[in-house]
Formats: sequence, structure tokens, C-alpha cells
Amino acid sequence: MTTPPSDALTFPASDREFLEPHLPPIPSPAPSTTTPTQNAEPTLPFTTLTFATSLDSSLALSPGTRTVLSGPQSKAMTHYLRSRHDAILIGVGTAIADDPGLNCRIAGVGGYGAAPGSLEGQPRPIIVDPCARWRITPQAKIVELVRRGRGRAPWVLVAAGTEVDAGVRGVLEGVGGRFIPVPWGDIPGDIPGDGEGKGRKEFDWRLVLEYLRREEGGRSVMIEGGAAVINSLLEPRFQGLVSSVIVTIAPTWLGRGGVVVCPPRRVEGGAVVPASRLTGVRWYPFGEDVVLCGRIRVDS
Amino acid sequence: MTTPPSDALTFPASDREFLEPHLPPIPSPAPSTTTPTQNAEPTLPFTTLTFATSLDSSLALSPGTRTVLSGPQSKAMTHYLRSRHDAILIGVGTAIADDPGLNCRIAGVGGYGAAPGSLEGQPRPIIVDPCARWRITPQAKIVELVRRGRGRAPWVLVAAGTEVDAGVRGVLEGVGGRFIPVPWGDIPGDIPGDGEGKGRKEFDWRLVLEYLRREEGGRSVMIEGGAAVINSLLEPRFQGLVSSVIVTIAPTWLGRGGVVVCPPRRVEGGAVVPASRLTGVRWYPFGEDVVLCGRIRVDS
Repeated sequence: MTTPPSDALTFPASDREFLEPHLPPIPSPAPSTTTPTQNAEPTLPFTTLTFATSLDSSLALSPGTRTVLSGPQSKAMTHYLRSRHDAILIGVGTAIADDPGLNCRIAGVGGYGAAPGSLEGQPRPIIVDPCARWRITPQAKIVELVRRGRGRAPWVLVAAGTEVDAGVRGVLEGVGGRFIPVPWGDIPGDIPGDGEGKGRKEFDWRLVLEYLRREEGGRSVMIEGGAAVINSLLEPRFQGLVSSVIVTIAPTWLGRGGVVVCPPRRVEGGAVVPASRLTGVRWYPFGEDVVLCGRIRVDS
Repeated sequence: MTTPPSDALTFPASDREFLEPHLPPIPSPAPSTTTPTQNAEPTLPFTTLTFATSLDSSLALSPGTRTVLSGPQSKAMTHYLRSRHDAILIGVGTAIADDPGLNCRIAGVGGYGAAPGSLEGQPRPIIVDPCARWRITPQAKIVELVRRGRGRAPWVLVAAGTEVDAGVRGVLEGVGGRFIPVPWGDIPGDIPGDGEGKGRKEFDWRLVLEYLRREEGGRSVMIEGGAAVINSLLEPRFQGLVSSVIVTIAPTWLGRGGVVVCPPRRVEGGAVVPASRLTGVRWYPFGEDVVLCGRIRVDS
């Protein structure tokens, strides 16, 4: 162990307790041979959908801006959640708007107090960027953190066949990151995906998650946003892929024009029905905010 | 006391406790002379803003429909809150869409177990209807409840100078209700109010609430909706009129096209800022839902 840097965060054991039933199991250090009742070869990772909204379901005041909604406790919680997942996944819009670090700053993980050189507890950042729009630079926060040994190098999922700029590729690969081509479908509808009109490309979330599990060994993925990614995962065809939902709600109305979590309208038998419901719900007051944990109710 | 009818509701004392700090004081049976420290003549009623939304801040799946969002406990809570206010106020859109009863069904109040003929604990229904759009009929639920001694006759606030149809007036006045002309302002902006284009009329909420307090002796008003009324009250110019906010949130996303609580965008010094924030916040898990109680933070 080394002394954690000054920006390390702590998340007390008393707060961890309420989250535990909603998290992926803590992986054994070595491949386990003692759990014969579990599916030996799951095809999908444990997928946690997590984000913070206002009372009017906004992630930010306007597109392309970052809005601090929740308190310091919630920030520490997010970093603790990151320590519990093999990967963090975000959409390219968030990567461009926020210049996020996507690492874990909980005291004791790699880069924040663990043995020098260790990246234990650091999740793999994954950016879903079908059209290769992200112009990653050497100054990007995520690149800087990798250089300082405080985070893993990002993987960028692009639609198979998409051209990637050589300079951008150089920056990413220079710190050990990768562009990964993933098959993309011809999915009807407005979202998910990226680009507009003819050049629009969309991923089938099942293919993406199966790929991460199969090819990259990701046992757990935490999906943090942004709105396009979240709204897409809450669609009927994809919501069964989500293992756990953890939403922080701040007691604030951001107002019109915000970046809103609101899945597409769902129609069944000619009638509009709720787009998505949770089950096994628990609410945890957390500072001024509340944390909602649950699972998506998949109708039989 | 009489035996309460079968549709009477109970709301246990254990649940009442968490709401108490967020409610108007229980009025003395006779005018009090023992509270010299209180303002003897407040000009405004204690105004509680209360409603239930989905996670995506919708009141209903689509305009003009009624969506059951919250569980039976929440329904009993709403009726308990009604018993604690002199009046319930809704917008005309909700009156037309929902055909609401707007009475209180808590066991023991007038019509639900109190002495025959008593209307104690029944709030006064108030419909804000600037353009007199509500075509109240003898079959309206609210009229039926008045006839059966289970609720007070409604007051309909119309913009001063608005013509009211004689037949509609007859129905309302036939059960003891009233059309009340209220001065209306020339308020810029989209909401509140009613009507479109040239015929659009808007109330200044301060005038409405002062009127209720001054002319009708309303010490407390519970404002239940709909979205236009709520969004209007959350505007900077009106939000200081709200004494208490009680919002129930159900763990469901209704999806796009819903009737959304989302106040107008707020801009200060050229920058977009949160439209409205709460202070003194408490969250109470309540069945599958959560109840948020707080006060609007009015910036100095």
C-alpha cells in the first residue's frame, strides 16, 4: 500500500451495505471451481444501469453541459460502484461533453493507495462510439489518468467497417487503449446509436454486451449514460439485459431544455403502457438525495 | 359517529407522523386568542403543492388520461392530506380529464363516519378555470358526492368578466357551488392559465391565493395539479408562494408523450440555472414509492 493521493474518496462500510444486494457478486481472486450451481459460462455480463437525475428526470441543464446534481456522498458512491465492476460504459456524447476520467478514486484501489503499478479495482472504460466521433487528445482527462497510473486505458467500440482517424488511433493506442470493431445491426427507431440520416449506425446492446463478456472477459459492466444510452437500454427489446438499476435523484427541478431520461413510448395492444417498471425496489435516503435500487420488471 | 361507508380509507398514525412537519398547523376549533406570536392576519394561505410522478416526471401516460401511478398507501395519504387542508385546488384540465371527486374519504370525516350532516374534514374543491371551460354536469362525480353529503360544493375561479353558460351555472349553484370572478393579469409567458391565442387568460397565483385567504377564509390550500398548474407554481415569480412540497415518486418510467412536470427554463446572468430547488428535504420510502417532502429554496 502507498498513501492515497489527496483526491482519493472514501465510502464507508455502513453505506456499502444497502448497495450490496444490487451489485454483481464480488469476484474470487482466482477462477472459482466451487460454485457448481452457477451457470459456468454466462453469455452476458452483470449489467448495472446507474445515473443521477433531477426530479424532472434531467441529467444536465442542456445538451453538452455537465451539471452537478448530487452531493459529495453520491460522488463517492459512484466511485465505489466503479470499483465493483470490471468495466464502465458510456456513450460518445458523454465522452465528448464531459471529458470524463472514468476511473475509480476510492482509497485503496490501484493508483489510489494500492501497491505501485497495480490497477486493481480500476474498471475498464468503454466508450460506445459507432461512428468514431470521439477525437481523443493527449490532454483528455482519461489519457492523463492512464499515464499517471490511475486508470485503465479505454476501449472504444466502433461499428465494424468504420474508418478511424490515424492520429486519434495513435493517441489511444499510445496509452494502451484500443478501437474495437463491433457488428452493428439495422435497428429501426430513433435510438440508440449515433450519427444522423444515412450515416447513422446503431448497436444491438445484446451483441455489445455478449462481445464484452465473451471476447474481453468482462463479468460486470456499469453503464453510466448519457441519456441516449439509458433511454435505449430502457426500451422493451433491451431492458431484459439490465441486471440492476441504481438511480440517484436530487431534490431539484432543472427545468425545460434539459437532457432527459425518458424512454420511448411503449404501445401494447393499441394502448400506451408504462415504458419500464422496477421490481424489488428499495429507496435509500442519502444526504439530500435518494438512491433507488431495483431490477427491471420483465413481463412474462 | 356513523359507520363509515365501504370506500372509506384509513391512514395509520404511524404514517401520519412523517408528514406532520410538512403540513399546515392543525387549526383550533374556535378562533385562537392564545398565539400572540403568530402573525394575526396572514395574507396568504399555507399552500401545499402535492402530486405523484413517475421517474420520468410524468403525471399521466398522455394528455387527457388518468394513470394510476402509485399504490393504495399513496391514495390513502392523498386523502389524509386533503383532510388537513381547508381547500383543494386543481386546474380545469384535470377537472375535465379526470372527473375527480376531490373529497376526503378518510374514515371519520364528514360523510365517512362523522355525525350525519357534518362535512367536517372535507376540503373545499377549487377549480381554476379562467375561461369557464368546465362543462359540469349533474352526473359529475363531484356533484354526486355533494348530493350524497360526502363532499363540499366546488368553487370555480373564472377570470373576471368571463361569461358563464347559464345551464352550467345552474348545475353548480344547484348543489351550492359558486362561480367566483377573480382579477386576472396580463402575465407574459406560456403558463399558467388557459385558452389559446387571443382568448388566453392567466391568473396571477398571488392574487388567487390572497383572494382565497381574504374573502373565503381559506387558511390552507392543497394544490394537486395538473401539470400546467404545477409547472406554473414552480416558476421563480410564484414559487415563493408555496409553503410545502410533497411529491410521491413511483419506480416506473412512463415514457415519452406523457404529461410532464418540468418547470420553464430559468436563466440568470445569461446562464441556465436549475429552475427550482428544495430545502429541508426528507425522503420517506412508502410501499414501492418514495415520498419527498421539502420547502422551495428561495434564493436571497
